[in-house]
Amino acid sequence: MGRRYDTISFLSDLGVVDEHVGVVKAIVRDLAPHVQVIDLTHQIGAGDVRAGSLALARCMSYVPSGVVLAVVDAGVGAGVGAGVGAGVGAGVGQRPGVAIEVAGGEGVVIGPDNGLLASAVAMAGGAGRAVVLDKPEHHLASPGAVLPSRDVFATVAAHLCNGVDLAEVGTLVDADTLLPGVIPLPRDGDDGSVHAEVLWVDRVGNCQLNVGPDDIAPWGSAEGARVQVATTDTTRVAERVARPGTLGAGAVGLLVDAYGMLSVVLDHRSAADELSVAAGDLVRLTPLAEGDRGPGTPVPVALRTPR
Amino acid sequence: MGRRYDTISFLSDLGVVDEHVGVVKAIVRDLAPHVQVIDLTHQIGAGDVRAGSLALARCMSYVPSGVVLAVVDAGVGAGVGAGVGAGVGAGVGQRPGVAIEVAGGEGVVIGPDNGLLASAVAMAGGAGRAVVLDKPEHHLASPGAVLPSRDVFATVAAHLCNGVDLAEVGTLVDADTLLPGVIPLPRDGDDGSVHAEVLWVDRVGNCQLNVGPDDIAPWGSAEGARVQVATTDTTRVAERVARPGTLGAGAVGLLVDAYGMLSVVLDHRSAADELSVAAGDLVRLTPLAEGDRGPGTPVPVALRTPR
Amino acid sequence: MGRRYDTISFLSDLGVVDEHVGVVKAIVRDLAPHVQVIDLTHQIGAGDVRAGSLALARCMSYVPSGVVLAVVDAGVGAGVGAGVGAGVGAGVGQRPGVAIEVAGGEGVVIGPDNGLLASAVAMAGGAGRAVVLDKPEHHLASPGAVLPSRDVFATVAAHLCNGVDLAEVGTLVDADTLLPGVIPLPRDGDDGSVHAEVLWVDRVGNCQLNVGPDDIAPWGSAEGARVQVATTDTTRVAERVARPGTLGAGAVGLLVDAYGMLSVVLDHRSAADELSVAAGDLVRLTPLAEGDRGPGTPVPVALRTPR
Repeated sequence: MGRRYDTISFLSDLGVVDEHVGVVKAIVRDLAPHVQVIDLTHQIGAGDVRAGSLALARCMSYVPSGVVLAVVDAGVGAGVGAGVGAGVGAGVGQRPGVAIEVAGGEGVVIGPDNGLLASAVAMAGGAGRAVVLDKPEHHLASPGAVLPSRDVFATVAAHLCNGVDLAEVGTLVDADTLLPGVIPLPRDGDDGSVHAEVLWVDRVGNCQLNVGPDDIAPWGSAEGARVQVATTDTTRVAERVARPGTLGAGAVGLLVDAYGMLSVVLDHRSAADELSVAAGDLVRLTPLAEGDRGPGTPVPVALRTPR
Repeated sequence: MGRRYDTISFLSDLGVVDEHVGVVKAIVRDLAPHVQVIDLTHQIGAGDVRAGSLALARCMSYVPSGVVLAVVDAGVGAGVGAGVGAGVGAGVGQRPGVAIEVAGGEGVVIGPDNGLLASAVAMAGGAGRAVVLDKPEHHLASPGAVLPSRDVFATVAAHLCNGVDLAEVGTLVDADTLLPGVIPLPRDGDDGSVHAEVLWVDRVGNCQLNVGPDDIAPWGSAEGARVQVATTDTTRVAERVARPGTLGAGAVGLLVDAYGMLSVVLDHRSAADELSVAAGDLVRLTPLAEGDRGPGTPVPVALRTPR
Repeated sequence: MGRRYDTISFLSDLGVVDEHVGVVKAIVRDLAPHVQVIDLTHQIGAGDVRAGSLALARCMSYVPSGVVLAVVDAGVGAGVGAGVGAGVGAGVGQRPGVAIEVAGGEGVVIGPDNGLLASAVAMAGGAGRAVVLDKPEHHLASPGAVLPSRDVFATVAAHLCNGVDLAEVGTLVDADTLLPGVIPLPRDGDDGSVHAEVLWVDRVGNCQLNVGPDDIAPWGSAEGARVQVATTDTTRVAERVARPGTLGAGAVGLLVDAYGMLSVVLDHRSAADELSVAAGDLVRLTPLAEGDRGPGTPVPVALRTPR
């Protein structure tokens, strides 16, 4: 039985304050010392399956072949077990973790069966064989509640890297029975607008939308083309740009970001703060004709007293 | 002289904002390139020896054979040296760092001699040979104050991994002369209660107590059994559960956590916030007879006017 | 073509919340699986080139031979590209990234050409060959805006580790044409004082100055020697010490820190808070004669009523 994989790309909501991530890596090092663990991020909001799913999808084009381990669980009580894996072997009725082969076996995506993995699997070309992780002989025995990252996922990932076949770590299931991911799609409004949603606010406040450039291609994509951006709180006019640096101070821009999606940005400022939006919030985009300033555009006011 | 260890499991209070942890890993990579450093956590509160000791103990069952490096120092001024290692070779009277063999030489635990390592050593089966790290030829020369993680511990850990014998990196001492750890034990109250202490509040607010299920075994451990939990501020009734997910909204639970200890939990809420407790705070547990609601239990109040 | 380097020491302002750092490491793992990436820190303030430059310089004596990758960009809009690398291959007029050989080819320092790398290169003995990273065949194609860390620096670093020659990843330039770093020098005041600047406030609040012990050698360096420390807000008397532990509660100390510079410290308290200073703030040091308490020294006040 030869070694099969030598990299585990690991994304989670476990944080880096408690030692959970370190313990996963310690277990992998112990069981499969040839493996390198790549930390994608561990600061997905606790239980935020949607944000975890989107971050994992953003990574998928870049992770090396091997295991992708993702642990974000809306039901988790991290320090004390519980969560999706808690039911493993305990018959308490929760869905156990899953492992899904992708790319003809070049990779395996492991995690809870809560929709977290769906986009990543789709980006890797769709599911091959899939198993539910219900074989306790491939888990660690917990002295109390099961901590899925430590007791289930770490050992299963290590065993797969060591060449254990997928069918040995769980029971084969039809991948179509796994919980699908929920990807919010933009919606066309009656007035020619597009009702979009903020997918992600990055560390500098750029707001990625669930809209690609093709979705608004008829509006024109030349630099300087203008689009009205309306949130619950405010309406602004955004300028199509290639990068924030060409925007004036305080001006709102709309660009094709590094992931090929449209993002609302400002130069050196947070678009999320400026527009008072967060991930999941709705944003309405409306094309503006040339010369149309849009309702939200500030109008210059002369300060001197008229004669 | 063959390579002896290929993993350093590293826990500290150095944080990840300054570059201290990175520099330790750079030094190890330079001196012992075959070694993998596993970061357990570096976000122990600055100087919180107790929290560091407990986190290290939680990791010990899972770390691979090799070096365990723990750096938490109540006297530290990190960026500018000082702390326990500051006295090394300088004769200023502080206790130098120590290295302690465990498990018949399968591992070495390294860190300050301030009680941080005691529980970890005990969990690994107790101390074998021990040395104080007083051999400057195994340290880096600092251009100023000694930074123990960088100037003492990184190089000593790397040298041990390279096969240098423990007796070469320090002076052998009787392990009994090292500072013991302080483990708070629960205390039986006069009224049949147990006076416990919060050992750890994890990232989601679960409160691990210094009480195991055996300590309250006579009270019964069936799911649904009830225990009064009294803190300085509040008194609540907790239900014995296997996992938080079975608790009603706002209900307090008591479960055997992933480390085999009792933890006070809520479902999707922070028990620490709910009970206004932090690590180190006292909690009194009292058994409740069936039907006894306990003094702190909310009583339902009818909202409609009685006829 | 043999493998050339096996370590990338990586410092950035990318943070560890978004997945940017993880993606860089995933790309390196994919292209150059023999390479170990050492994270120095990723929590340089976003766009704080000065802080990044100083942190990198503090690390340089300790990083192993190989690649040093530093990514801090004042113009960056991280999630959506832009920044120094955004112009690469796009002809938008921004300066592309650079790679600079140091130590006779034992190392290569890679990053934006914004002064970030200058101190590090100087500490490594000065620049050898230098190239601007203008060869798109060594970059990744972005689906939208260029994300320099991912699309330029990760691949170039991996290729150099794999043995690609520096001259192949870019166009050779005279290193003197690269943007120099700005190192603030202390200035002598008219009154015998030294006008210094806070270079760095570390995680416990110690304030490193841009002054070395030689700069104030004539004032005497014996333990207990006293120096007046004046900030915009306050004036205090600092005592020369070897480590904070010898200071009384609330007393201000001045010591030669672990980097050979003078730092203002307190014992178990933040000097930055005590003196209300941050990185970049000015501090005036003035020698005090023996017996001179300095203007800012608290004077003991007798509490009992005089007879």
